[in-house]
Amino acid sequence: MQNFKLISPLDMHLHLREGEMLETVAPLSAETFAGAVIMPNLITPVDSENRLLEYEKAVREAIRPHTFEPFMTLFFKKYDRDFLQRVKDKIIGIKLYPAGITTNSESGIKSIEEAAPTFSAMQELKIPLLVHGETDGFVMERESEFIAIYRKLAQTYPRLKIVMEHITTQAAVDFLDRYENIFATVTLQHVLITLDDVAGGLLRPHLFCKPIAKRPEDRDALLQAALHAHPKLMFGSDSAPHPIDKKESCGCAAGVFTAPIALQVLVGLFEKHGCLDNLQNFISNNAQKIYGIVPPHKVIHFKKENYTVPQKIGEVVPMFASEELAWSVDNFQH
Amino acid sequence: MQNFKLISPLDMHLHLREGEMLETVAPLSAETFAGAVIMPNLITPVDSENRLLEYEKAVREAIRPHTFEPFMTLFFKKYDRDFLQRVKDKIIGIKLYPAGITTNSESGIKSIEEAAPTFSAMQELKIPLLVHGETDGFVMERESEFIAIYRKLAQTYPRLKIVMEHITTQAAVDFLDRYENIFATVTLQHVLITLDDVAGGLLRPHLFCKPIAKRPEDRDALLQAALHAHPKLMFGSDSAPHPIDKKESCGCAAGVFTAPIALQVLVGLFEKHGCLDNLQNFISNNAQKIYGIVPPHKVIHFKKENYTVPQKIGEVVPMFASEELAWSVDNFQH
Repeated sequence: MQNFKLISPLDMHLHLREGEMLETVAPLSAETFAGAVIMPNLITPVDSENRLLEYEKAVREAIRPHTFEPFMTLFFKKYDRDFLQRVKDKIIGIKLYPAGITTNSESGIKSIEEAAPTFSAMQELKIPLLVHGETDGFVMERESEFIAIYRKLAQTYPRLKIVMEHITTQAAVDFLDRYENIFATVTLQHVLITLDDVAGGLLRPHLFCKPIAKRPEDRDALLQAALHAHPKLMFGSDSAPHPIDKKESCGCAAGVFTAPIALQVLVGLFEKHGCLDNLQNFISNNAQKIYGIVPPHKVIHFKKENYTVPQKIGEVVPMFASEELAWSVDNFQH
Repeated sequence: MQNFKLISPLDMHLHLREGEMLETVAPLSAETFAGAVIMPNLITPVDSENRLLEYEKAVREAIRPHTFEPFMTLFFKKYDRDFLQRVKDKIIGIKLYPAGITTNSESGIKSIEEAAPTFSAMQELKIPLLVHGETDGFVMERESEFIAIYRKLAQTYPRLKIVMEHITTQAAVDFLDRYENIFATVTLQHVLITLDDVAGGLLRPHLFCKPIAKRPEDRDALLQAALHAHPKLMFGSDSAPHPIDKKESCGCAAGVFTAPIALQVLVGLFEKHGCLDNLQNFISNNAQKIYGIVPPHKVIHFKKENYTVPQKIGEVVPMFASEELAWSVDNFQH
C-alpha cells in the first residue's frame, strides 16, 4: 500500500499550554487532527467559567486557520450542580488529578467521598470524568494500585463515564472489560516503549513521561488493544511539550512531545502489524461513540514516503527526533 | 556523639578514568580512603600486563602525595595460566562484564563454558572474580535473572572467590548466604534510593546508574545488610564521574559520583540507625578479611558539623550536590 487516509483523527488527551508554547504547538496538532481534548492543568488551572472561556478563546486563536475542534475540560475540584449545569455544554469532561490519593489511605477514600456531590452531579448531567489514575506509591505500581479507586468509582457511579487517561499497564487494559462505564486513552509512546527504552541503556529524558513506561508485557497488552481498536480505547497522545532546557537538565520534566508525528508513526505501526483497517476506529470512531461527539470532517492523506522528523520544533524535541519515518502526511491532497 | 573515626576505609569498587578526569577525581578518593579497587573498563580496557602497569603508574601519580593503595584489576577475557601466574601479585582480581550473557540463552552458557580454563586458572591461583551481574533482560530484572549465572559459577568453581559487584536487589542479598564463595559490594546510592528517586518525580539524571536503583524492598534489604555489616558485604562506591554535559543531555550516561562524600554520608546514615559500631566492618574490615589484604594504616576523623556538598567538583556533579550533610571530615586532626 502506498496511500492511506484517515477521516477526522482525534487526539483525546492533549496538552497545549499557554502563551508562546500554545502558539508553537497548537497549529502542529491542528494540521493533522480534527480535534483534541485539551487538558486543563495550566499553571493556573482551568477551574472557573471565566478561565475556561478565556483559555478556549486563546486555543481557538492559536489554531486558526485550521479546521480543528478543541474539546475543553475543567480541572476537577468540588463544583456545585448549578455551575456544572451552566458549563456542561462548554466542556467534554472534567479531569481529576487525585493528588495524594492512595488505595490504602483513609484520606484517599475520604477525598473521594468528599467529592461525592460533584461526581453525582456529573453523573446526572452526563459529564464524563477523566482521571490521571496513579497513587503515590512506588512508581512502577502507581497505576495498578489505582485500579481499586477506579473500581470504587465505577461501582458507585455506574452511569458516570470514567476515562482512565494514558493507561500504561496490562492491569488497566484488563480492567476496561470489567465495568461498562470504564474507558481509556493510550498514548503513542506507551504502545511502543518500556522502561528499558527510558533507562535500560543511556537515560533518555525525551522518553520520560508520567505515568512512566512499564514492563514489556504491559507494552504488549497496550499495543494489542490499540491494534485491535478495542472499542473502549481511544488514542490520546498526552503530547506534552517542554522546552529542551527543562528536559535535558538535572531535573527533567515529564512529558513526550508526539503530536506532530503521532499519525505518521501510527500508520506505519498499524501497517507493520497488518491492522491498518483498525486505525480509523482507534484514532476517531471509538472516541466519537464513547463521547457522543461529531468532529469536523477532515480527511488526512498519507503516502509511503520517508519523512525525517526534525531535531527540534521551536524549543521542543519531538519523539523520534532526527529519525526517519516510513509514512508522511501528503499535504498536497488536502 | 560529636566525633567519630574510621580506620583505613576502603572503596572496593571505584572508577578513576584516565587523563584529566583521573587527575580530578583520584585525589578526592585518596583524601578520605586508604585504598580502592580500581575498575579496568577504560576506553581501551586494562587487559594486558603493559596496560595494567601503565594504568597503575598513572593512578599512583594522580593520588600523590596521599597515602592510598590502588588495588588494580584486569578486564576479563580468556587469559592463559602463565599470564595469570605472572600478573597475580599485581592485581586484586579480574572484572567480568558479561556482555550479552542471558540466563536462558545458549550463547550465554556457551561463553561461560568457553571461559572455563580462565576461571579454573583463577581458582587455582586464588585470583578473585569480580562480576557486573546483569543479563540483557528487562532493566528491573537484569540482576535477579543473573543470579542463575552466579549459582552456576559458585557451584562449578567452589574455591573461586566471586564478588557480585554493586548489588541492587533483595535477591542478591539473600544469595550471599547460599554459597561460601559468594561475596558482594554495595554502593552508597543503592542503600539510599529507589527507582522513585530517579524517575518518580522529576527525572534525575545524576541519580541514574547501572544497575538502576530498584524497588523499596530491595533498597531496604541492602540497607539492612550494610547497617549490620553483613560479613560478606563490602562497601564499593562504584563512584563514576561523568562531565555534566554527559549527564544532562538527551542520552545521559550511567553513574553516580559519590567518592568525595560517601564517608560523611555513611557516618550520618549509620548514626541515624544506631549502627555506627558496625561501620568500621562495613567500610574496611570485611574487605580485609574477604580479600586478605592489609591496607595502609590511615585514620579518618569526622566531626558533627554541617558540610555543604559543592554544586560541582571540576565538571562533575556529585550526589547530594548543594545539600547539607550532618557530618564532615575533620582534616585538622589528620
